[in-house]
Amino acid sequence: MVAMPVGPEHATLLVSCPDRRGIVAALAQVLYGHGANILDSDQHTDPVAALFFQRIRFDLAELQTDRLTLERAIAEVAERLGMQYRLLYANRPKRVAVFVSRYDHCLYDLLLRHRAREFACEVALIVSNHTELESVAREFGIRFALFPIDPSNKAEQERREIELLDSEGIDLVVLARYMQIVGEEMVTRYAGHIINIHHSFLPAFVGGKPYQQAYERGVKLIGATAHYATKQLDEGPIIEQDVVRCSHRDAVEDLVRKGRDLEKLVLARAVRSHLDDRVLVYGNKTVVFG
Amino acid sequence: MVAMPVGPEHATLLVSCPDRRGIVAALAQVLYGHGANILDSDQHTDPVAALFFQRIRFDLAELQTDRLTLERAIAEVAERLGMQYRLLYANRPKRVAVFVSRYDHCLYDLLLRHRAREFACEVALIVSNHTELESVAREFGIRFALFPIDPSNKAEQERREIELLDSEGIDLVVLARYMQIVGEEMVTRYAGHIINIHHSFLPAFVGGKPYQQAYERGVKLIGATAHYATKQLDEGPIIEQDVVRCSHRDAVEDLVRKGRDLEKLVLARAVRSHLDDRVLVYGNKTVVFG
Amino acid sequence: MVAMPVGPEHATLLVSCPDRRGIVAALAQVLYGHGANILDSDQHTDPVAALFFQRIRFDLAELQTDRLTLERAIAEVAERLGMQYRLLYANRPKRVAVFVSRYDHCLYDLLLRHRAREFACEVALIVSNHTELESVAREFGIRFALFPIDPSNKAEQERREIELLDSEGIDLVVLARYMQIVGEEMVTRYAGHIINIHHSFLPAFVGGKPYQQAYERGVKLIGATAHYATKQLDEGPIIEQDVVRCSHRDAVEDLVRKGRDLEKLVLARAVRSHLDDRVLVYGNKTVVFG
Amino acid sequence: MVAMPVGPEHATLLVSCPDRRGIVAALAQVLYGHGANILDSDQHTDPVAALFFQRIRFDLAELQTDRLTLERAIAEVAERLGMQYRLLYANRPKRVAVFVSRYDHCLYDLLLRHRAREFACEVALIVSNHTELESVAREFGIRFALFPIDPSNKAEQERREIELLDSEGIDLVVLARYMQIVGEEMVTRYAGHIINIHHSFLPAFVGGKPYQQAYERGVKLIGATAHYATKQLDEGPIIEQDVVRCSHRDAVEDLVRKGRDLEKLVLARAVRSHLDDRVLVYGNKTVVFG
Repeated sequence: MVAMPVGPEHATLLVSCPDRRGIVAALAQVLYGHGANILDSDQHTDPVAALFFQRIRFDLAELQTDRLTLERAIAEVAERLGMQYRLLYANRPKRVAVFVSRYDHCLYDLLLRHRAREFACEVALIVSNHTELESVAREFGIRFALFPIDPSNKAEQERREIELLDSEGIDLVVLARYMQIVGEEMVTRYAGHIINIHHSFLPAFVGGKPYQQAYERGVKLIGATAHYATKQLDEGPIIEQDVVRCSHRDAVEDLVRKGRDLEKLVLARAVRSHLDDRVLVYGNKTVVFG
Repeated sequence: MVAMPVGPEHATLLVSCPDRRGIVAALAQVLYGHGANILDSDQHTDPVAALFFQRIRFDLAELQTDRLTLERAIAEVAERLGMQYRLLYANRPKRVAVFVSRYDHCLYDLLLRHRAREFACEVALIVSNHTELESVAREFGIRFALFPIDPSNKAEQERREIELLDSEGIDLVVLARYMQIVGEEMVTRYAGHIINIHHSFLPAFVGGKPYQQAYERGVKLIGATAHYATKQLDEGPIIEQDVVRCSHRDAVEDLVRKGRDLEKLVLARAVRSHLDDRVLVYGNKTVVFG
Repeated sequence: MVAMPVGPEHATLLVSCPDRRGIVAALAQVLYGHGANILDSDQHTDPVAALFFQRIRFDLAELQTDRLTLERAIAEVAERLGMQYRLLYANRPKRVAVFVSRYDHCLYDLLLRHRAREFACEVALIVSNHTELESVAREFGIRFALFPIDPSNKAEQERREIELLDSEGIDLVVLARYMQIVGEEMVTRYAGHIINIHHSFLPAFVGGKPYQQAYERGVKLIGATAHYATKQLDEGPIIEQDVVRCSHRDAVEDLVRKGRDLEKLVLARAVRSHLDDRVLVYGNKTVVFG
Repeated sequence: MVAMPVGPEHATLLVSCPDRRGIVAALAQVLYGHGANILDSDQHTDPVAALFFQRIRFDLAELQTDRLTLERAIAEVAERLGMQYRLLYANRPKRVAVFVSRYDHCLYDLLLRHRAREFACEVALIVSNHTELESVAREFGIRFALFPIDPSNKAEQERREIELLDSEGIDLVVLARYMQIVGEEMVTRYAGHIINIHHSFLPAFVGGKPYQQAYERGVKLIGATAHYATKQLDEGPIIEQDVVRCSHRDAVEDLVRKGRDLEKLVLARAVRSHLDDRVLVYGNKTVVFG
């Protein structure tokens, strides 16, 4: 199940390093020198952290050397300028695992968007601690892996989940209203590769039952937040947020209903940004190139 | 300085009481019976709190009795049905005091809206702990009262402020980015009549420097919240909130700049709702009729 | 397939009439007099058109007479005050037909919301001029009716569609990106009961290919509009609209993608308002009670 | 009256040209080679028009040659690659003329933002066809030039206005709800340097009285559009748009009131983008770098 085959000869270079002069020219030069054609380039300097970030998308169709030679040249520049970087080729679509429990709205939303070719990825796997959504997996022809979890087996089941993710070569885990706290081992191993959707505009209403909390506080907006999962629950780097207006007329179940739409939209935008290699994490923040 | 003389014969009745059958009919009947013509009526039932709320705006131009007789009849119904209520006549515009420190954007915004007849009130007074904005008061022809505050005189100055508010017959105090915590005595005496603007989407980023906090957390939206001031700082009933999108490109000073627009809009909407007698407070929440 | 059984003893009265005094009291009195308990009431006066509108939701559980007697009493008041009205009982959920062609996003969205109990209706029928979405109908267990249309058979096919709608007792037709212009006969027969979704913020970009038009004009927002279908294409009374930001970076296919989300949200809100009996049409405008 | 002195050694290069490989590298190289440090770079390719656009902001503090030599080098690259470009130095703030008639909200908004250092410009001049806003000009210490206009003198007055703009070295004309159609001569001479605010979400409701038109059509959103003035009224390249929700409750005067907030925000964002050299016009569209 593969969607949206963007130019197979395209590649993306994501770079972060201490800010200094000459970075942009150095990277442009090395790419141009090998015949790679820059399609798109976006950059950002954080003056407080004194860090430089860049995303360069380029076309390899008329490369004058080969990929290996280009990779070596980039590695050299990176070492010289103290860069961290990732180089991603479009002809290798990312493999995604979606974790769910009983709520189906985010799952359906992701699968229908994928089918509509909004996401450049393979949905390789649906993982759940419950059986309810197995039929959805079947309907879309995706492997369903059941890991029932209770306090006694949680650690063991997560170990088995990690094994499955590893063996399936998963690049991105999407927690699509998965109702379990993901353990430290998985969060560490897949750091920066697990996106969670929280049903409030973090940092407001951390923890459980955010719609109930929002109702009790009497807010006039409710929100949703997509963030990378970290050891600190609800504290990971935020990728995307949005809100919708509510009023005294909205009971908790109205907030839940309005929130479903938000959760779907916010999660989908975050997943899309990640799949397009637009997100760079630093400290507890993100740069999301537009 | 008086603006927007809505029909001088109009009145508004704001009601809250335990929910029971027959309330709507009883109020409609008493008004109709005296020749008051209902212009607008909005109601709400909170099923969790089992409370009923109603706002009725009516025209007294063809009243068949007199105001006193009508008031007695309403009082009777109110007692029978266990209602709390307020009856407000449009021919007595509310008297407003604006508290400021050094920021001028909310003050200018309120005064220009008033001049454009967006608010049905008199701006009777500008109170400040600093001299900077005295020239703005002069420009708009409004009395400026200076109460410099330091830790040693804070209690005494607030007592004098309350005396001034009392003697001026102030109905509404607007804290337009006033950089002092208002003392318990004033908050108690003017409970439900002091509107504050907080520069975050509460309950996120309570306390000081919310834009700095937002920057550090890396949120993708910043917000502003207008609420009634209570003893618990930043915890009063929320009247209005809004947000604006931000990104990694926004430094703290960009958040401050974007936030100014939000603060102005959110505070103005809250003040307008209050002046139009659209807000009912219960517990720590509000009903804001549309 | 029935969802959201709101209190079976609830009813809604929708009223419009020339504005005059005493209307609110008269209706409240007749309901109270028969033991009907008003749950919710919202009203509006259009001062330009001099028209009065009201929506009253009430509970019949403790009716002291019977429905027929109440109906007669309401009819009497209506005649006396020159009212047009509709009385709708919640225990008779509306029957809905969804018209589609090849796009599946609005159809899926409506069906999933229905399954999540967001809509108080039965989805009785999916009508299409193409076979592509028959499998979706099957998946959700809904009757699928195929009416292939070409210039030579269009009038005849629409006649057969109307017969089917009539025989199925359809209350609401939802044109969920149905790619045919609905004929005058159907539009007249089901006036005020056909909701269409147009993929622009009407009245901008009427007619075909609105995303292409938006791209060419270089707008910074794209929109969607849900409206009742009328003889004048894209000119019917607007129920709901929304927009989303776009930029020079968005190609036509990005606008189409962003637009899908809008179309789904805007259509769903309009359908929900209609199903909740919140929409009153007058002239070419709507009152949508909140 | 000068605000926001951004680094005086900063410069911005705005480039557009037919898309071809090597552009990014060529520009990076020439700047780096002269010791100019790239601070920010944003680019865009329009695949339909086959055009390339770039905005590069750089620091000249450690320039190894001089400005003239750098300018020559850029001119050479530009000629070789068929580029159109503008080079702007931050130490020469733009000179702005604001045209007004009787509405003061956009004028106050611009002047207060300028005073709050949101705009990098001098406000050199306020031009009006009426006397009403002269006092505002005086209050902010800005030259006020009165050009009363009637059908008989319109051409002559505009000629005098152009002379004034020329002699004052005006870089940007802001039509802040100026209630005259600007003549062809001025629009041609200052093409791409006149920003107008239109009080609807263009292309809906072109021409006069857009709020009245919006009211009659019964839209659920009203908007505002900032665009460059061109010969075709209301058809110039759009820089910024936004909308706000309205409902059946809003009379025309409510739309006007809500619209004022939109007009201020949208115009201010467009002016800021222009002053920051973020806007490139091509055909009837704009690229607005973020």
